[in-house]
Amino acid sequence: MSVNSFGHVLRFTTWGESHGPAIGAVIDGCPPGLPLSEADIQPFLDKRRPGQSRFTTQRREPDDVRILSGVFEGRTTGTPISLMIENVDQRSKDYSEVAKAYRPGHADYAYDAKYGFRDYRGGGRSSARETASRVAAGAVARRVIPQVAITAWVSEIGGDAIDPARFDMAQIGANAFFCPDAEAAVRWEALVDEARKAGSSLGAVVECVATGAPAGWGAPLYAKLDAELAAACMGINAVKGVEIGDGFAAARLRGEENTDPMRPGDGGAPAFLANHAGGIAGGIATGQPIRLRVAFKPTSSILLPVETIDRAGQAADIVTKGRHDPCVGIRGVPVVEAMVALVLADHALLHRAQCG
Amino acid sequence: MSVNSFGHVLRFTTWGESHGPAIGAVIDGCPPGLPLSEADIQPFLDKRRPGQSRFTTQRREPDDVRILSGVFEGRTTGTPISLMIENVDQRSKDYSEVAKAYRPGHADYAYDAKYGFRDYRGGGRSSARETASRVAAGAVARRVIPQVAITAWVSEIGGDAIDPARFDMAQIGANAFFCPDAEAAVRWEALVDEARKAGSSLGAVVECVATGAPAGWGAPLYAKLDAELAAACMGINAVKGVEIGDGFAAARLRGEENTDPMRPGDGGAPAFLANHAGGIAGGIATGQPIRLRVAFKPTSSILLPVETIDRAGQAADIVTKGRHDPCVGIRGVPVVEAMVALVLADHALLHRAQCG
Amino acid sequence: MSVNSFGHVLRFTTWGESHGPAIGAVIDGCPPGLPLSEADIQPFLDKRRPGQSRFTTQRREPDDVRILSGVFEGRTTGTPISLMIENVDQRSKDYSEVAKAYRPGHADYAYDAKYGFRDYRGGGRSSARETASRVAAGAVARRVIPQVAITAWVSEIGGDAIDPARFDMAQIGANAFFCPDAEAAVRWEALVDEARKAGSSLGAVVECVATGAPAGWGAPLYAKLDAELAAACMGINAVKGVEIGDGFAAARLRGEENTDPMRPGDGGAPAFLANHAGGIAGGIATGQPIRLRVAFKPTSSILLPVETIDRAGQAADIVTKGRHDPCVGIRGVPVVEAMVALVLADHALLHRAQCG
Amino acid sequence: MSVNSFGHVLRFTTWGESHGPAIGAVIDGCPPGLPLSEADIQPFLDKRRPGQSRFTTQRREPDDVRILSGVFEGRTTGTPISLMIENVDQRSKDYSEVAKAYRPGHADYAYDAKYGFRDYRGGGRSSARETASRVAAGAVARRVIPQVAITAWVSEIGGDAIDPARFDMAQIGANAFFCPDAEAAVRWEALVDEARKAGSSLGAVVECVATGAPAGWGAPLYAKLDAELAAACMGINAVKGVEIGDGFAAARLRGEENTDPMRPGDGGAPAFLANHAGGIAGGIATGQPIRLRVAFKPTSSILLPVETIDRAGQAADIVTKGRHDPCVGIRGVPVVEAMVALVLADHALLHRAQCG
Repeated sequence: MSVNSFGHVLRFTTWGESHGPAIGAVIDGCPPGLPLSEADIQPFLDKRRPGQSRFTTQRREPDDVRILSGVFEGRTTGTPISLMIENVDQRSKDYSEVAKAYRPGHADYAYDAKYGFRDYRGGGRSSARETASRVAAGAVARRVIPQVAITAWVSEIGGDAIDPARFDMAQIGANAFFCPDAEAAVRWEALVDEARKAGSSLGAVVECVATGAPAGWGAPLYAKLDAELAAACMGINAVKGVEIGDGFAAARLRGEENTDPMRPGDGGAPAFLANHAGGIAGGIATGQPIRLRVAFKPTSSILLPVETIDRAGQAADIVTKGRHDPCVGIRGVPVVEAMVALVLADHALLHRAQCG
Repeated sequence: MSVNSFGHVLRFTTWGESHGPAIGAVIDGCPPGLPLSEADIQPFLDKRRPGQSRFTTQRREPDDVRILSGVFEGRTTGTPISLMIENVDQRSKDYSEVAKAYRPGHADYAYDAKYGFRDYRGGGRSSARETASRVAAGAVARRVIPQVAITAWVSEIGGDAIDPARFDMAQIGANAFFCPDAEAAVRWEALVDEARKAGSSLGAVVECVATGAPAGWGAPLYAKLDAELAAACMGINAVKGVEIGDGFAAARLRGEENTDPMRPGDGGAPAFLANHAGGIAGGIATGQPIRLRVAFKPTSSILLPVETIDRAGQAADIVTKGRHDPCVGIRGVPVVEAMVALVLADHALLHRAQCG
Repeated sequence: MSVNSFGHVLRFTTWGESHGPAIGAVIDGCPPGLPLSEADIQPFLDKRRPGQSRFTTQRREPDDVRILSGVFEGRTTGTPISLMIENVDQRSKDYSEVAKAYRPGHADYAYDAKYGFRDYRGGGRSSARETASRVAAGAVARRVIPQVAITAWVSEIGGDAIDPARFDMAQIGANAFFCPDAEAAVRWEALVDEARKAGSSLGAVVECVATGAPAGWGAPLYAKLDAELAAACMGINAVKGVEIGDGFAAARLRGEENTDPMRPGDGGAPAFLANHAGGIAGGIATGQPIRLRVAFKPTSSILLPVETIDRAGQAADIVTKGRHDPCVGIRGVPVVEAMVALVLADHALLHRAQCG
Repeated sequence: MSVNSFGHVLRFTTWGESHGPAIGAVIDGCPPGLPLSEADIQPFLDKRRPGQSRFTTQRREPDDVRILSGVFEGRTTGTPISLMIENVDQRSKDYSEVAKAYRPGHADYAYDAKYGFRDYRGGGRSSARETASRVAAGAVARRVIPQVAITAWVSEIGGDAIDPARFDMAQIGANAFFCPDAEAAVRWEALVDEARKAGSSLGAVVECVATGAPAGWGAPLYAKLDAELAAACMGINAVKGVEIGDGFAAARLRGEENTDPMRPGDGGAPAFLANHAGGIAGGIATGQPIRLRVAFKPTSSILLPVETIDRAGQAADIVTKGRHDPCVGIRGVPVVEAMVALVLADHALLHRAQCG
């Protein structure tokens, strides 16, 4: 019931603050005998790593991961896998302003209301830096379900969406935006540059598809696959909406428009003629691709002054100086992938527990 | 880790199938000494009860709830509260067709893929009838947090939205649609009637607001209030999307447009100048109204034939006869309210555990 | 985290008070496709049923179990199995005395200290009547692990132990004490009769052996098989001690006396030359018989007056009239078996989750 | 449901192997604002630290603990507290023998049966070295419940028990055995020396008393305080038995001998005339001292050859060379204290959740 843990039988716990000595994750329940080394985890961290283009925060973190336990002679032992990432670039800046006044849109006020005080340095525990731990854990989860391919991308920034007709999976890794539409990527350069220079920020929509999850994974009723994916993604910093399959668009369809008809398929599995449902029915995978969409709000840290109050309740203005992502949704891509991997790997094991 | 349970310290477990003898819920962790009787629960079940207008299924269920344990001399004792609702109108119809062929959009195929066989009568465990148990449990949760007011309504059916300028809380209980806009309610009569007569169905959007939850409820990081609300609502039958606050619209705002500035307020609490965030920051309540939106797909049971396969993998057509809601989102209103109540009550206690 | 639930992936929740309308259990996570009917559960309840000899309480309860969900056409569906047992013989006696004064040794004072008030009728939730729900759930657990045989017996009453040389498994069902030593059973008749007539009560030791659990079940470190068995049995009413294998006697052995040497065995499994460990090493089954011992205190309800206080804190004397077991350990035998079955079945599934 | 985690609302997870780079614990749910530094934890680790006398293993570990998160400006923040202890003295000895053959009494064979392979260096995850993490976590738990005093001691080694009449709390810290009877401590020197020199080992009984826990902590029915203490202690390496209060001795008492009569006491709380129950009734604390006894088997690592098999199933003899505790129960004392602290602190918060 740890609120800093996630998962049922494959379960991970994260710890660490933005400006503490390190952050980390402990993963429990991993099957034994899986090949695993730092080299399997590092590439995913590198995707999320800050400072790789001018479109993300300029904080310089190598994000080198160390495996401290749970692996022996290159294979998982079935015991807890402890991962640690040192914080290197905790700039010794002056935090006196943010210590005193609340940054609207951030967790500052809510944390104080809950705990009475907070580690205000760089957002402390509520910093998006924590998502590095998720990405590291997600890399382990991928090992558990090698049959599943999980890919996320940015489909929209600041209201400017990709053209589905130009969707090209190969483009996702070819630009700074995880954008599958090469033309949109060009437009977004200007868009994000403009916002960055204006001291503003932009929201984004991230989409994710997981293929290879067999029909049967998932569970009624309070561990429905879609409910778990929703929780997993809504819990990512800055996320405000989650859709499975057609999502809100389904609410505007008639029953016959929203149906996913079935025909006999190859190898015993049905061939579905559509996938409005996003690969999940009754909380259980149907074997179709699992599709979801995630809305990221614009980064709350902006260089424009915002009205706020200080800890004493007095009126104040705050400008969030420092190094921030002009569009936090971009670096959300590897985080969404990681959370989807963690949910699916957990349900793979949970399904095996009950159904063999 | 029961997948048929929900909640951390206020936790409920549901059981029962659509056409079994009864359904029910067991609620554990309820504080002692709260006044509770069947009369406190029944009104919420009556709101969800089928057969109250021609716009919902014609199945006739009195949905009389019985308290079997956990209450003594009119007050909760702190021990498990067992609630039972008998199934009365399990019509002895012929289920041979649905037993053989899969209804697209329903859990039929997924359940068979998971469990190898299923109780096909009326959808068995995957029937929306299970939501009566949630509504009953939600009524108990309301007792735990009497300071919180939770109200949901339908804001859109089949793409026809209410006019926010006509929003009138008093209208919600005055029509068959839980519609706060009297004019929209009139339009929806025709809309839903048309779909019903055509053997089709419509989707809907349900909105919910909870006021009175104090700043501080909620928890980082994997029990964030928004993540838990998302899971709670995405787990309701037919739901495909959840938004907190501005949701996907926030992804189209700039940072300065999406901010919720703070000013000194009365009684120590800040006065917020906006509520784009929907009352939650960093997973923790800010004290503002908690706002969410939930997308219901159109009922999958339609009278129009759909291509499918049977259990042997052969092509078939299926028409879902029987008594169905032309717009399942309507009866989703009390269910959304119940799930929100259960999440908030759980977090009220969880907050007290850690923070006193 | 329900405190009225037990288990990880096979999890049950019980509800109900001694003098409420019914008691019951909901079992979640049961594998699908197992044959199950009331007739599979009833024999275990009948073993625990009161009023079968003069050596147990004279309360008359048929303890007829009903399956309300989770079974379809004679097989488990994988959805929650709801079991209900009606309370029939709640004698309408006068509880005014027990309502006012605390019975020492019972939960009366502790419940009031915790909850502020309590259902005092027959002990309410703290009554050993709750163990009927465990026995019913245990019968389902046995279905999950048909390869395991679990047998418990009374090895000692009031300090009078069986002679191991006379141990005869066939005797266990042949007397009123679940006693494997026919001579001891004769002695115990006199012993228990004497205590009963004197208005006193006796303690007992119950032993249990489970054979057939394969090496590998169990888990480090906080779900060790021995730790879970200890919790499962220490949680039974009136239990004050649990030993695994040699238990406290092991603390008096030297290392070389306590060893369980291994030799090559048939079929790949080792042949152990001893079983001091009780079949568990490092929290994981070794494949040997799992052995445990459980100490039951004498029934706290006695006809002799005991000094106590009343709810107002005033001195009082109390005599616990009514129908009570002179030796509550006797009826503990099917309860210990049930709890062992539930732990082992849960770990069978948990092991499958992680290790396939 | 992590099997390497313990607790409900105050929950800790441990990780690390005997010969990996480090071990550690992550504690979640700790109340905010508690003063905490390494200096609060280190003294408890020092009590458990090896190599402090010739009566414990000669492995040299400074066991310096580092707090990596969850503390800011000397106070807990309410976020996860990550504790790390580096392994310093992993002697680069030859493990080829233990890699091949199973040490009876250790987890070697069981781990291989479960996981297919294991980290055999120094026992890997199953090493008692893991208990350092528990002790560190326990020090944090003590901060949560400063009103509770928890003291454990060794009451018996190799069958030689202390004389209760000589019990002197002040002696516990004055000898190498945590022995409250100065005369017994002298005898034990000879006893343990003899065993050590003979290459053998001895078992021990550890007793623990916790005072100051108020009536009301604990919970029916599957989180009974006694059941949780039993699980907590039975899960410690080498433990084979747990008793609450009089334990097995209660099974030999008559009802009237086992009663704990109550009289009006000072300040509203009752005065109990005895404490056979060990301070717990119905799973809930009565306000009396909580008493328990824990049986430690003799260390399984002995210098005498034991018959065993190797990984290929062939007969072998094994002698466990290396640095071992001749009586592992001695260093169990701070571990028992830590586990009791963790259970009580967890229940203090759990009680507050439900009952305010």
